[in-house]
Amino acid sequence: MPDASPAASPSALPDLEAIRSAHVRIAPHVHRTPVLSSASIDAEVDAELYFKCENFQRVGAFKARGACNAVFSLREDEACRGVVTHSSGNHGAALAYAAKRRGIPAFVVMPDNAPEVKQENVRRFGATIRFCAPNDSARETACKDVQRQTGAVLIHPFDDERVIAGQGTAALELLEQASAIDIVVAPCGGGGLLSGTAIAATSGNPGMRVFGAEPANAGDAAASFRSGKIEPLPPTVTIADGLRTSLAPRTFAAIRAHVAAFGVCSEESIVRAMRMMFERLKIVVEPSAAVPLACLIERTLDVAGARVGLIVSGGNVDLDHLPWQ
Amino acid sequence: MPDASPAASPSALPDLEAIRSAHVRIAPHVHRTPVLSSASIDAEVDAELYFKCENFQRVGAFKARGACNAVFSLREDEACRGVVTHSSGNHGAALAYAAKRRGIPAFVVMPDNAPEVKQENVRRFGATIRFCAPNDSARETACKDVQRQTGAVLIHPFDDERVIAGQGTAALELLEQASAIDIVVAPCGGGGLLSGTAIAATSGNPGMRVFGAEPANAGDAAASFRSGKIEPLPPTVTIADGLRTSLAPRTFAAIRAHVAAFGVCSEESIVRAMRMMFERLKIVVEPSAAVPLACLIERTLDVAGARVGLIVSGGNVDLDHLPWQ
Repeated sequence: MPDASPAASPSALPDLEAIRSAHVRIAPHVHRTPVLSSASIDAEVDAELYFKCENFQRVGAFKARGACNAVFSLREDEACRGVVTHSSGNHGAALAYAAKRRGIPAFVVMPDNAPEVKQENVRRFGATIRFCAPNDSARETACKDVQRQTGAVLIHPFDDERVIAGQGTAALELLEQASAIDIVVAPCGGGGLLSGTAIAATSGNPGMRVFGAEPANAGDAAASFRSGKIEPLPPTVTIADGLRTSLAPRTFAAIRAHVAAFGVCSEESIVRAMRMMFERLKIVVEPSAAVPLACLIERTLDVAGARVGLIVSGGNVDLDHLPWQ
Repeated sequence: MPDASPAASPSALPDLEAIRSAHVRIAPHVHRTPVLSSASIDAEVDAELYFKCENFQRVGAFKARGACNAVFSLREDEACRGVVTHSSGNHGAALAYAAKRRGIPAFVVMPDNAPEVKQENVRRFGATIRFCAPNDSARETACKDVQRQTGAVLIHPFDDERVIAGQGTAALELLEQASAIDIVVAPCGGGGLLSGTAIAATSGNPGMRVFGAEPANAGDAAASFRSGKIEPLPPTVTIADGLRTSLAPRTFAAIRAHVAAFGVCSEESIVRAMRMMFERLKIVVEPSAAVPLACLIERTLDVAGARVGLIVSGGNVDLDHLPWQ
């Protein structure tokens, strides 16, 4: 099967031009989200903060950008057989959304104990769920089975050049919307958002710094950044469940090349930052989206006096169980 | 004491030109708030909805617009003695904010049982609180005492031409931000926001309709609109506490002249609409701000197939006691 699409290269990264092309490609399918600010939050962290509200994005998270870029980058002969992934979170919903927009099938592999709400997030866009046992090898087997049976193209949640390019488009917009930004901070799970953000923001901007933000309880990317090799995810839990993912070699390479520093934060700071964003910005965010602000509150990232963009990654949170209650 | 400011006329209303002037006057002091939309909410109400997010406004509510226009409309010889009002809610905080921006004193009369959080909302902008017994006549006496003792100018929460002009600026922006709007819906308490919205939206737009939205439990404006005279506030309670206010002759005149219809809604629909805005728009709103959507959900306002702007009036809500919990 011929495959000339960019994902064919196992380590390729998008450049600024690819991110700009992605921005044009996905424009009809995603929101240009607003940028918000709060004088009272600025006073607490001694910096001017610009929050890029990807919680308002389609499917409630930046993931719509990467999924749409991947799906709309496929040649017609690839696309017609559909797409598959194994994320039951925001990427699964985003891929289902993107596939629906293109009018092609989507298959989402999910553990058979996945909560009903996550199943519904995928089904409402017409995707087919394939259940598997709740472990990594069952998940990979199920994914390969779908590919073999249907010819569907695997769209990995972050280890994919097209997905990374799509995620980088949020930073492109942020830099257009807020002038003279010095620093951009993005949360880091598998590193797709952080990689795309870092490439988009630093390319051709020698003074720009991009920081990664992680829960201390899932501080594997920060540890990898320090040690120079991909470190395993600690066996702890974090409320920021979207960030409980290890880096791939591809995203690690982008991060080493383009990220200036990492900050980590406590679970308490995540809850405090999340509540601050509800109270002062009046926005609904998921815990992962509060991690950059939590690092600024703990001052594990130095942004004093700077103009700082923060990527607010998503807003899919259970309103019946907010963490301060 | 000479007083040539517009509030001198007890029944005057702003025209479109006055609202445009207000918009220019307050621009340095308020946010141009974004407009959000949700395909899934649109599908539920069979219309295209454009939510003008005044919950993101300074002090968390549209009230910053009217207060800033009133305060910055004052002549220097009026302004130097300060301003006074008797709202302990969003208007009190907004007036404190506006006075701080102009560098003049603000006095806010509050019942001596006002919650600490409302006191703090006013004090953080440097305003002086004057406590009074928790009834209308004590409140008016206290206000007059402040005026007599200090020479401060009374800025009424809604019965004021300058305040109404300021509130109308949200609709001006909305019509610039979302094209080809057919209908604008605003909540109605004392009628300042609805009056300003209706004048701004209908002037020079013969096809435009403006609707008022009220809780059935505080449906006095809807009743007044039907009967042709100002009806008293029913003795019931509503979760939308910002709307428990009667019309003034001034706002009633504007509403009769420029509003096409009223809708009312149940308490259950307010909670449902509020949660829908949290879940789908990912925004934090106070119950009053959910009343327009609640009327569309109940279909007490007919908007089928239309492009509808809704003024999301504010986001000041107790996150420890959300009403669906």
